[in-house]
Amino acid sequence: MAKPPNQDQTREAGIVESWHANAQPWVSAVRTGQIASRQLVTDAAIIDAVRGRAPASVLDIGCGEGWLARELAARGIRVSGIDAVAELVQAARQAGGGDFRVMTYAELAAGQFPDAVDCVVCNFSLLGKASAEQVVHAARGLLTPAGCCIVQTLHPLQACGELPYADGWREGSWQGFSSHFRSPPPWYFRTLESWTRLFASAGLRLCELREPLDPRTGKPASLIILAVRA
Amino acid sequence: MAKPPNQDQTREAGIVESWHANAQPWVSAVRTGQIASRQLVTDAAIIDAVRGRAPASVLDIGCGEGWLARELAARGIRVSGIDAVAELVQAARQAGGGDFRVMTYAELAAGQFPDAVDCVVCNFSLLGKASAEQVVHAARGLLTPAGCCIVQTLHPLQACGELPYADGWREGSWQGFSSHFRSPPPWYFRTLESWTRLFASAGLRLCELREPLDPRTGKPASLIILAVRA
Repeated sequence: MAKPPNQDQTREAGIVESWHANAQPWVSAVRTGQIASRQLVTDAAIIDAVRGRAPASVLDIGCGEGWLARELAARGIRVSGIDAVAELVQAARQAGGGDFRVMTYAELAAGQFPDAVDCVVCNFSLLGKASAEQVVHAARGLLTPAGCCIVQTLHPLQACGELPYADGWREGSWQGFSSHFRSPPPWYFRTLESWTRLFASAGLRLCELREPLDPRTGKPASLIILAVRA
Repeated sequence: MAKPPNQDQTREAGIVESWHANAQPWVSAVRTGQIASRQLVTDAAIIDAVRGRAPASVLDIGCGEGWLARELAARGIRVSGIDAVAELVQAARQAGGGDFRVMTYAELAAGQFPDAVDCVVCNFSLLGKASAEQVVHAARGLLTPAGCCIVQTLHPLQACGELPYADGWREGSWQGFSSHFRSPPPWYFRTLESWTRLFASAGLRLCELREPLDPRTGKPASLIILAVRA
């Protein structure tokens, strides 16, 4: 008899299911600039962080509909993108700018991406627990010797809200998004300490932490972690 | 004509003046366990962080009345302590446990501490701007090759309060302390990004960030930064 999936597995599957269900409104939200924090702060912040490393090649993990790949390609960078959601990858391919493939994080961790790149970037795309750990652990092997792994994520202290400051699954929300979105993905909250421990355990050493500020609040809109091979 | 001191210099001087003025109530507050966050969380957290590096020798920068030195000495570690406030150093000497000297951070940065140590520790003792920068920049030269610099400080996101999340001087407060305290020292707020940039600029690389939790709030009581020679 097959073992029933545990809570972690159910939630990891729930993340991918939610993105399948919301692929179309997501493409529309990104392409029409509906997400204010991205427009105001975090899009420019991740582009700056990647450009600061002057990579010739980038792998965009959880590339979605491909906006970041297009921005980087327009600056002369060779970009590959992977995403588990075929509909998003299809949208990315149609818009061009990179070599986009349907690939799960487990497949990536299993070695299915064949090349080494100067920069691995995850822009708000590490939402799960084991899946995020797989990606960060895989990153080291995907990087050229001086390559850099860059993760933009919710700032732990800002994202914690009223709940205890401890790793754990949280309910998702589409608050502020259009009515076309449904079944928000769950996400796994990590403390700053936990993020730094994850990078260390993956053989990556932190070289920089950035906290792009939201001009509306004067507080960090996100946390950007830059790490290189230890 | 001598140039008048700038605001930074006035505030740096204000920090040391305040500690001179409050040395006696401080000794009493520490030695009678009046500071709840220290009793509940941060004292044990800094001892754990230092012991985790298994140092034979430690330099406690801003040692105050010497409680941390005594705790570490009781665990077989050879401890030196420096502090700019003679009255605190005198109290530390009387209680024993280490080799305590009156020394300003500027004197430390000028090379007046003669030995290399396995661990440099600053426990809530980097309150200023230039003075904190001097200490972190001096730390690299004070460490043995595998030595570790450990700083415990207010957690930037927790300490920010309603003010903008940006480096800058803040008013001090003795809220929660006895009525014997007066003229609280100003302190220089640093973002997490700014702390990590300071370490990098000093030739130190982060190996760990810890966020000891306050059991009363479930939120970080402090931030502990561990860094080694880059």
